[in-house]
Amino acid sequence: MSYAVVGSGAVGLFYGIQLAAGGADVTFLERRAAEDVRTRGLLLRSPRGDRSLPEPRIARRWEELDRCDVLLVATKTTANADVVAQLARHADRVLADDGCVLLIQNGIGAEAAFAAAAAGRDVLAGLAFLCARRIDPGVVEHLDYGTLTLAHHAADEVASGITPTMQRVAADLRAGGVEVTLDEDLVRARWRKLMWNLPFNPLSVLLDTSTDELVGDPDTLALVRGLMAEVAAVASAEGHALPPGLGDDLIAATTSMTPYETSMKLDADAGRPLEVDAIVGEPVRRAQRAGVAVPRTETLLHLLEFADRRLSGDPRRLVRVADVTSQPAVSLSAR
Amino acid sequence: MSYAVVGSGAVGLFYGIQLAAGGADVTFLERRAAEDVRTRGLLLRSPRGDRSLPEPRIARRWEELDRCDVLLVATKTTANADVVAQLARHADRVLADDGCVLLIQNGIGAEAAFAAAAAGRDVLAGLAFLCARRIDPGVVEHLDYGTLTLAHHAADEVASGITPTMQRVAADLRAGGVEVTLDEDLVRARWRKLMWNLPFNPLSVLLDTSTDELVGDPDTLALVRGLMAEVAAVASAEGHALPPGLGDDLIAATTSMTPYETSMKLDADAGRPLEVDAIVGEPVRRAQRAGVAVPRTETLLHLLEFADRRLSGDPRRLVRVADVTSQPAVSLSAR
Repeated sequence: MSYAVVGSGAVGLFYGIQLAAGGADVTFLERRAAEDVRTRGLLLRSPRGDRSLPEPRIARRWEELDRCDVLLVATKTTANADVVAQLARHADRVLADDGCVLLIQNGIGAEAAFAAAAAGRDVLAGLAFLCARRIDPGVVEHLDYGTLTLAHHAADEVASGITPTMQRVAADLRAGGVEVTLDEDLVRARWRKLMWNLPFNPLSVLLDTSTDELVGDPDTLALVRGLMAEVAAVASAEGHALPPGLGDDLIAATTSMTPYETSMKLDADAGRPLEVDAIVGEPVRRAQRAGVAVPRTETLLHLLEFADRRLSGDPRRLVRVADVTSQPAVSLSAR
Repeated sequence: MSYAVVGSGAVGLFYGIQLAAGGADVTFLERRAAEDVRTRGLLLRSPRGDRSLPEPRIARRWEELDRCDVLLVATKTTANADVVAQLARHADRVLADDGCVLLIQNGIGAEAAFAAAAAGRDVLAGLAFLCARRIDPGVVEHLDYGTLTLAHHAADEVASGITPTMQRVAADLRAGGVEVTLDEDLVRARWRKLMWNLPFNPLSVLLDTSTDELVGDPDTLALVRGLMAEVAAVASAEGHALPPGLGDDLIAATTSMTPYETSMKLDADAGRPLEVDAIVGEPVRRAQRAGVAVPRTETLLHLLEFADRRLSGDPRRLVRVADVTSQPAVSLSAR
């Protein structure tokens, strides 16, 4: 099938290059460094062997994309308002009538907007378990893992099984060497991933630390467990119960992994907006709709929103900071 | 009456100098800079007028303290294990048989240990609403406020009313110009103060910010309100209910105050141990004993314990940090 990759970060490059290597017809949307990438090609550096695309198909804008079967979206969720607007404008031109969107992103709940923008076409979710980073435009360094779980979005969020579209996309990915798992329940798959992301991403930012320290410290470990229990409660209330031992398994896996920084920590360190809403905000809204109390997650959300506003230089905040610095901060010793 | 001041930080100096100015016989325990302070005297700089004690009575060690009527303890709660041990060893020598301990500290629940160490003598709590800082050994800069609320410790924590000892100490403080309020319910007074300290002290450290930003941001304001509600619930369950509008009043007062950094923020910035246990740990234990759920406070406690261990260079932590830095941190992009 033919693919267009929107989002040329580590995730989009990693899966796009492998799809192309497997024989799929892949175009990469690359706005900022299109000429560079056309000249130098795309490169996937991997301990499993490097792969290069010396003459990749590059589009600079949505207007330059040809019609394709699969639009692979691998942008940060913080860009979703823009991406959904572009998709709504261009869907009938860039996507075949029986084409689909493959959304490889963090968080939960973004599929509905993509489904609406894609005018009724299928939306698949791709849940990546991947350790990689983009080190230059067009160059991705693969560090570890790389499996992708595919699931099919249903408007009512009921598990919709394994569809033919999922199988076709899986075949293309596997031809490129990607290990693919098919999941019949998209929402459960998203909650499963959130059980790791929801504690570890925010805590790594708020405490400026890496995953091994979070599982190595008794206090943050207790907090991780408390947050995981809240995720499990909401997933269950939504009818997508997770296996009882999942939290322990994830903690054990994290303990034995090479220490690494979460994607949100990298975003924070690079001054990029944080994926607060997809990873924490939407889970809290879902908990509220389901009538499940998630006070630990709400606390995390409030702290993270504050941190995100500061990192992103929210204009309201900057005004306030200026106000503050015009008056010397004093200390209330006895407090 | 005669007083010995243990803890020559801003709080101990502020009240000690005023007691002496009012005519009380005051000795200051000053370990590190005893000679300096003896030579240069003590100085309280205040917008209400400076006060100096050119020839203060200084003791370098507990062994050098004469017998007194009131032992004014104004150390950080993080030093309480040491101070209580010293008191237990020296109580009968440094305190008159009808003497008392006046404990001017943050948090809740420290009085019982001092009462045991003081061998049955009275323990009073002093709750300071004071904006001051020690700028040199023996020199305290008074910025604003300065009132002190006195209350009497009862072993059963039931409100024990206004005692003659409280009135005698209040008279000495007032003679020195201190505004004193007498409170018949020590535990309620401590919870009232915690309603401010428990949210603002930890949040200012965790988010590296000042009080005006915490009340100015919608997310941290919501979090402050949630934490205040938990404090109110525990106070109420312990039989020391706070007035319903107290939280709103404290938030309004904080909004209109000059921005300042909390004592815990100053401790963090100076690399001192944080008063985690007195301000958050003991409230959580009391909530557990009373069967009150305080998930927001527990979340704060876990975060703060982690931060405190890092700041204090906990040896276990340092070992782990060394382990980490020997392996390059990598990023799990899709997480």
